[in-house]
Amino acid sequence: MPSEGSYQSLSELHRSRVVEYLHRNGVSSRADISQALGLTPAAITKISAKLIELGIISETGTVEGKRNRRALGLTLNNSKYRVIGVKFARSLVQIGVFDISGLQHSLLDLPPVKDAHISDTISEIKRIIRDLLRNDPNIIAVGMSVPGPYLRHDGRIAVVTSMPGWTDISYADEFENAFPVPTFIEHDARSGALAESLFDPRITSDTIAYYLVGEGVGLGVMDHEQLVNGDRGAATEIGHISIDINGRPCKCGNVGCLECYCSAVAVHQELIDSDILAQDHPDIASMTHRDACNALFAASNAGNARATELLRNISRYVGYGCVNIINAYNPRQIIIGDIMAQAGDILLTTVQKVLRERIVPEILNSTEILLSTLTSDPAITGAAATAANQFLRYPSLFARNT
Amino acid sequence: MPSEGSYQSLSELHRSRVVEYLHRNGVSSRADISQALGLTPAAITKISAKLIELGIISETGTVEGKRNRRALGLTLNNSKYRVIGVKFARSLVQIGVFDISGLQHSLLDLPPVKDAHISDTISEIKRIIRDLLRNDPNIIAVGMSVPGPYLRHDGRIAVVTSMPGWTDISYADEFENAFPVPTFIEHDARSGALAESLFDPRITSDTIAYYLVGEGVGLGVMDHEQLVNGDRGAATEIGHISIDINGRPCKCGNVGCLECYCSAVAVHQELIDSDILAQDHPDIASMTHRDACNALFAASNAGNARATELLRNISRYVGYGCVNIINAYNPRQIIIGDIMAQAGDILLTTVQKVLRERIVPEILNSTEILLSTLTSDPAITGAAATAANQFLRYPSLFARNT
Repeated sequence: MPSEGSYQSLSELHRSRVVEYLHRNGVSSRADISQALGLTPAAITKISAKLIELGIISETGTVEGKRNRRALGLTLNNSKYRVIGVKFARSLVQIGVFDISGLQHSLLDLPPVKDAHISDTISEIKRIIRDLLRNDPNIIAVGMSVPGPYLRHDGRIAVVTSMPGWTDISYADEFENAFPVPTFIEHDARSGALAESLFDPRITSDTIAYYLVGEGVGLGVMDHEQLVNGDRGAATEIGHISIDINGRPCKCGNVGCLECYCSAVAVHQELIDSDILAQDHPDIASMTHRDACNALFAASNAGNARATELLRNISRYVGYGCVNIINAYNPRQIIIGDIMAQAGDILLTTVQKVLRERIVPEILNSTEILLSTLTSDPAITGAAATAANQFLRYPSLFARNT
Repeated sequence: MPSEGSYQSLSELHRSRVVEYLHRNGVSSRADISQALGLTPAAITKISAKLIELGIISETGTVEGKRNRRALGLTLNNSKYRVIGVKFARSLVQIGVFDISGLQHSLLDLPPVKDAHISDTISEIKRIIRDLLRNDPNIIAVGMSVPGPYLRHDGRIAVVTSMPGWTDISYADEFENAFPVPTFIEHDARSGALAESLFDPRITSDTIAYYLVGEGVGLGVMDHEQLVNGDRGAATEIGHISIDINGRPCKCGNVGCLECYCSAVAVHQELIDSDILAQDHPDIASMTHRDACNALFAASNAGNARATELLRNISRYVGYGCVNIINAYNPRQIIIGDIMAQAGDILLTTVQKVLRERIVPEILNSTEILLSTLTSDPAITGAAATAANQFLRYPSLFARNT
């Protein structure tokens, strides 16, 4: 992700601020934008003329202005530009088309991937994306979300517990020049943080954490608008931060990794090892991790006391992760997403209980815990957000290409 | 700390880049600077003229140029500007004068602070600083380092284990307008990270972690040049990240906090509870934490096997902290500083052993662990760095004031 230093000029930076403002606030007058961004009316006139010329924004109707005067409204041409999002998540690959407001136009699930057939899967992904691009010239970019830790410079993932085959793939080599539009690759939880920040109206802070509790456990952190990446892109690996130095051994080499206690894979294993769902789901071992977790949530909702007890216990571990997130990154808002977020209230109340036990009130009172409500899975939306974010930050770059 | 967005203009940003380049590289030609920063020779000529006019840099002798031509050298007027650094560390307060290259001119230790007399201590600090400023008109700023978590907007510390009195002090209210020069306040470990980055020539990366293992355990992280602060300035609290969810209770409310296992306070307590140093130091209970730790290091060096065993055990905990730092922030360089760093080789080799056991080689091979070698204590140097950093980033702001 380019930093602010990457803007070629102040005017490009200002253009991106105007586009982001319209993205967040919808139809707005030039006076509103001027006041909100602290740019002079003359500068806004100039910037909006350029963006209209590029086809990125339009004038639309009138809005209420100062002293009851009516002013022309400006709006982002959301529907004009679309992006493709691709989500890689161990055995799952999804491909969707989104507009740059995050609205999903189509979604395709590939058949479950086997470790031995990854290269076939990659060929299939390329074929599908090329077809989509051929049929829709308004698609301006492809975004991909991959399970971490994603080594940015190498274009590879350092370790994927439970599907090692993916670590041999160079995503950058395979995809970055494979299509006639640019491709952006991001760690799944970081792309989720982008999606929450761009597409969820409840997210008002620029310092947030998206806490992905799915097949793996991941985290994306924005600290004052900047994603925390680390030297090689391997930062914010909350799933491999140990919560118990004498705990369960993890395939990453560490022991007591959070992922060993509350990922969907770990929950599924606990369900297989116990007989909690044996009566309703004798086939529990052959279910997908997601289906097994959903079966647990349903059993708890239906009043199965042992299911509720297990779910509370797992939720406490999700809470221990939140305690570490607060001490490590002090985000204003933490959004819990992916499979475990479907547990709903029981998860949220248990997490909040753990936080009250373990975080000083001074900090806790300024930290909000939310469950993700993005209509589709945040990781696929995040893949789209990774592409949309580039567009919102460097609008004229894309306009020139179309 | 202002972000890049705070620069009032591109030219101020470019001026700070030139000043930082000269700070890091010493005497350089205009052509060297032009090439290194990617700015045109014409721009460098203009920027250097302005900085010479402001008295921030000077022309000095000649340096080897291209095609054996001699070129005039530019140099930062290090000796012209000085800063005051103040270190607050529970019972210790130190006040030093430094030049902006980090060279220490004077250092004063206040008598140990008692919790009941903090307001007297504050009056005394103000009197000393005002005296220093009166006697040296070239002092341009005051930097202060305080033990974390420091709540930036409130100007207060949320919790200081073992000296709660400090949490009632608003550093911002007490000091920010107390002197005729600006005062900058920074969390101690973050100011240490600034000091390492500005003053230690071994630090070549812009993504580093300064790991303070002293009376408290703290961390300052720079991710691609930006300090990780969190929403309220309470991020990177490694000392309160739990390494054992069922571990020792900590005064912060959490359990199993790293600080409970390897801070100088924890080490001192283990020495009091055991009889390892009883023969040589029957007064161990009344020693300062620092002296007790130094006694342990000396005993280990002198061949006391039980001292060495305890030191190895404590060093493993320092290592568990490093494992968490790598998974949380993926820094290129980790610098271990403060009291425990004095343990030297035994600490470093034990930490490296823990990392080999618990971090994937792919990441470990690109992570360097160093012991701090700053001539004085990094936290007091860090206080100075906090002020010097502002000068290096916003040079013309200060030049205008002098």
